[in-house]
Amino acid sequence: MAELEEVLPALAEEMAARTDRGEVADYIPQLRKIDPDRFGIAVALNDGRVITAGDADEAFSIQSISKMFTLTLALGKVGDALWRRVGREPSGNPFNSIVQLEHELGIPRNPFINAGAIVVTDVLLAGHQPREALGEILRFIQFLADDDGIAIDREVAASERATGYRNFALANYMRAFGNLQHEPELALGVYFHHCAIAMSCRQLALSAQFLAHEGRNPATGHSVVSAERARRILALMLTCGHYDGSGDFAFRVGIPGKSGVGGGIIGIVPGVASIAVWSPGLNENGNSRLGSIALEKLTKAMNWSVFAP
Amino acid sequence: MAELEEVLPALAEEMAARTDRGEVADYIPQLRKIDPDRFGIAVALNDGRVITAGDADEAFSIQSISKMFTLTLALGKVGDALWRRVGREPSGNPFNSIVQLEHELGIPRNPFINAGAIVVTDVLLAGHQPREALGEILRFIQFLADDDGIAIDREVAASERATGYRNFALANYMRAFGNLQHEPELALGVYFHHCAIAMSCRQLALSAQFLAHEGRNPATGHSVVSAERARRILALMLTCGHYDGSGDFAFRVGIPGKSGVGGGIIGIVPGVASIAVWSPGLNENGNSRLGSIALEKLTKAMNWSVFAP
Amino acid sequence: MAELEEVLPALAEEMAARTDRGEVADYIPQLRKIDPDRFGIAVALNDGRVITAGDADEAFSIQSISKMFTLTLALGKVGDALWRRVGREPSGNPFNSIVQLEHELGIPRNPFINAGAIVVTDVLLAGHQPREALGEILRFIQFLADDDGIAIDREVAASERATGYRNFALANYMRAFGNLQHEPELALGVYFHHCAIAMSCRQLALSAQFLAHEGRNPATGHSVVSAERARRILALMLTCGHYDGSGDFAFRVGIPGKSGVGGGIIGIVPGVASIAVWSPGLNENGNSRLGSIALEKLTKAMNWSVFAP
Amino acid sequence: MAELEEVLPALAEEMAARTDRGEVADYIPQLRKIDPDRFGIAVALNDGRVITAGDADEAFSIQSISKMFTLTLALGKVGDALWRRVGREPSGNPFNSIVQLEHELGIPRNPFINAGAIVVTDVLLAGHQPREALGEILRFIQFLADDDGIAIDREVAASERATGYRNFALANYMRAFGNLQHEPELALGVYFHHCAIAMSCRQLALSAQFLAHEGRNPATGHSVVSAERARRILALMLTCGHYDGSGDFAFRVGIPGKSGVGGGIIGIVPGVASIAVWSPGLNENGNSRLGSIALEKLTKAMNWSVFAP
Repeated sequence: MAELEEVLPALAEEMAARTDRGEVADYIPQLRKIDPDRFGIAVALNDGRVITAGDADEAFSIQSISKMFTLTLALGKVGDALWRRVGREPSGNPFNSIVQLEHELGIPRNPFINAGAIVVTDVLLAGHQPREALGEILRFIQFLADDDGIAIDREVAASERATGYRNFALANYMRAFGNLQHEPELALGVYFHHCAIAMSCRQLALSAQFLAHEGRNPATGHSVVSAERARRILALMLTCGHYDGSGDFAFRVGIPGKSGVGGGIIGIVPGVASIAVWSPGLNENGNSRLGSIALEKLTKAMNWSVFAP
Repeated sequence: MAELEEVLPALAEEMAARTDRGEVADYIPQLRKIDPDRFGIAVALNDGRVITAGDADEAFSIQSISKMFTLTLALGKVGDALWRRVGREPSGNPFNSIVQLEHELGIPRNPFINAGAIVVTDVLLAGHQPREALGEILRFIQFLADDDGIAIDREVAASERATGYRNFALANYMRAFGNLQHEPELALGVYFHHCAIAMSCRQLALSAQFLAHEGRNPATGHSVVSAERARRILALMLTCGHYDGSGDFAFRVGIPGKSGVGGGIIGIVPGVASIAVWSPGLNENGNSRLGSIALEKLTKAMNWSVFAP
Repeated sequence: MAELEEVLPALAEEMAARTDRGEVADYIPQLRKIDPDRFGIAVALNDGRVITAGDADEAFSIQSISKMFTLTLALGKVGDALWRRVGREPSGNPFNSIVQLEHELGIPRNPFINAGAIVVTDVLLAGHQPREALGEILRFIQFLADDDGIAIDREVAASERATGYRNFALANYMRAFGNLQHEPELALGVYFHHCAIAMSCRQLALSAQFLAHEGRNPATGHSVVSAERARRILALMLTCGHYDGSGDFAFRVGIPGKSGVGGGIIGIVPGVASIAVWSPGLNENGNSRLGSIALEKLTKAMNWSVFAP
Repeated sequence: MAELEEVLPALAEEMAARTDRGEVADYIPQLRKIDPDRFGIAVALNDGRVITAGDADEAFSIQSISKMFTLTLALGKVGDALWRRVGREPSGNPFNSIVQLEHELGIPRNPFINAGAIVVTDVLLAGHQPREALGEILRFIQFLADDDGIAIDREVAASERATGYRNFALANYMRAFGNLQHEPELALGVYFHHCAIAMSCRQLALSAQFLAHEGRNPATGHSVVSAERARRILALMLTCGHYDGSGDFAFRVGIPGKSGVGGGIIGIVPGVASIAVWSPGLNENGNSRLGSIALEKLTKAMNWSVFAP
């Protein structure tokens, strides 16, 4: 098998040379400003090594990758009761579709599409002020990455709030069906802010490592979730982590992942490593174009796949 | 870890005692006659052992499980060109939905929903008479299971043909979009017959073992598909193998699987084993109710999961 | 032909005796309080007579009937340019469906479903403060009915605003597609208030009489719209005036109409009369149950139909 | 008001000069051969006069206009029981959409979309051989037009049968829901043949005149349907006669009509006349482009509208 220390720099170099980088998300004004030529990758191995290449220490907007953290927190808070308010099935529709909500009476298909993540945020709001709920989410991510420097980019959050009409539509719609316990304004306030958390590939890979290690952080030894819950979160990532491109990602890359429109993707090789990659240009499903390709090449080179023996 | 030789009989006994068995498929008249109390399970381990419990040697109608075999054959025949005519995404709709076909211009979401499997069958028909194409499918399955006794239940096939109006609708619809190269009557003739193949749990577990063993049959050593293709078929099974219950199956059971309305399910533990289970009563998604539960209990007891280290 | 002076009281009496009155709208808290036993009817004939029966002078919430007035105003303001932002086709969906908006990129099907009426309200807001736009709508209706006593029920408006999540969803959704020029909060503020205008059957019949009289008010002689525009508004009422019950209303009643969830319906017999009827209980399409039945009986008794010679 | 004898030739001349004729239907091979430059119009006045212009005596394929005749026949056969199997609402979807059938369990929206007309044909088949049912339809149309020369173009019928996969899909789909009492092959055999009836504008205008004359043929005095039924058929034509362009036709033309993809349209001015127009090029809704425009100009010139006093 190839050596990761050699594979990663070569991959970063290859990606830097590509010109088919996709389009940077343009519906959030602040994200439009990102340099599309950036590419970073970080692999946090369960043996403690962290190997990086490219712009792996530059912070970017994690966007929907935050849904992985909020789901973990909400499951810790209400357990399987969460599944009464959100499903566990792939949506077969774009990340911000409202059609399914009408047919399925306000219950989003899964916690990784926008509607589902708004419900998860609503769960985290229960008994809290928005500021407190947001603080809890941020501290959880800092704890997972063991890094107090992780912060929210408030300009991005403000930009999303000012233009996030579609998310307001989703939230109001679910509220109409009784599947939002707080005013849409409040739930979305928290939602836009946790999507606007900025992290580097290195921080992201470290923060997700508990999922590659049966629920425990291998560096600190802290137990985050049970081994069973870690597996189940991975199952959701595999089937639903890339919107209506989830099947294709599983087919090509072969590991659970979660993407964000900021161009980041987190991938998990159970028992081995967590991988964070970042390239701002997106493909037609709203997932990082070069990030997906880099992960496909990396898992192939390293023979990493949940479908391998 | 538990010993499979002890787990399996206990599981069969527990399942035999349950009364919440779901409903036997009633839209295919011949399937209605099946005794809902049957339960069988067979595990074909990569080390050569085959362990069974319950009615593991009784043949049943494999129905949609045949889609796994036809997909494998069609990929062998046309390779990735197949993906121009059928997608790789979960459908988010019941197995026989026609709505998506209209919105997506006759391209079925994946090869495991009926529309997709009809396209796959159409691919296998190219250059053949229906009788020849069907013979090729049957011989392929006999070869995989190393068992010439596997046969088609022609009464079931006739029963499906006489009542399969919905499949006729799907086939005609795709033909209208130009995504069927043969007359619907011909493609469906083959389709109904390969769905009507009858196999026991033991035969089914053996026939699918190449998917648990990087594409090679561990007993005969014959290479069926490349290791990469085996993984990709498993990815499709995990994301799409249980219709609009695929996400839930991945979440609960944690391994790739493919179900049929005859009550059978095949599950694959990469590197370890293939599992066939059979109980005729179905849940609301059209998957074997006790079969799903038995697989969940078995994978938990054996600590089998593609999401485990 | 029957004499209207005899038909109307008999009809009111018959309706008062019926017990199958449908259900009062319950999603707007203030409307729930209405006495379901009320029934009123008023016919304003082009010859100047106004004949009434039952509770014809009691004010009720006109709700979606206001869409007929705002459409008329908006056509006066921007003319056919309106049709770039809203369609003219029956929706085939409930009044508050959001599905079509996604498939048709934020362009509502017609000005009589909620989404379409919100766009129309947005048009009336252009260049105005909400308070001014609302004042213009109210004064227009007072002018049409020649009655300054018509007013907005601010409790109903506040009740709708506090619970109108679905309308907030629609407005935000259209704003996301760029088909709302003002903030959803502003357009909906005006929308909720014009829906909350309270009028009696007598006032309503008089206010709509211009549509029965080629665009001119027969009492005052004032021209409201051109004859051609009056006919076109009637065409929209016939094809779209009763949500997904429009076809049935045209089939049974045979004249253009517009209903509101407050239980009112306005019907127009071109060249003859405008009819307002009110009974708070609704049928499954959200239209007044007894109101529809009374109109069917009245048009039959009087031989009124746009499809008659 | 203008004199029809002057208006009609001028209109035919104007239409002959236009080059924006739309596209001839290409999905039925036989129809592709039609000369797109043809234009004919015939007006059958209730006073007995028949005024024509252009190619008014050339036979063309009436296609979906036949649905008006089969609906009339089926209502005569089973009365309001028909409405248990087909709705009366505009569909809001193209003429051959299958989506609504899935959501509404096999009950088509109205008798003028393909699915609904196939159900109506199935009703006419009850107790008959296909040949007999077809003969009954043809004789009914001959009787209405008082012209035994009207015939079926069997080449067109064969062409439709050979390529009508979408209609086979619809029929099989409804059969799956139990809303077709005969095998799809049989019902469609009759359906394709009655769509392939060839008539001239003159014949068509005469055959539909009973609808303009309270259900009675003014020439022969024969009563075809009751006055009430005639009005109700007109209501269905107005709300559903032009597929998803019905609202626009009512808005622009202002009279009930029914179009066919052969380029014909029949329009009814209650109490005055029936109008048949023919121009083979279609607009984006599948309705005759110049036919629609000609009808709009004619009704405007003559001040004909069901919404006029």
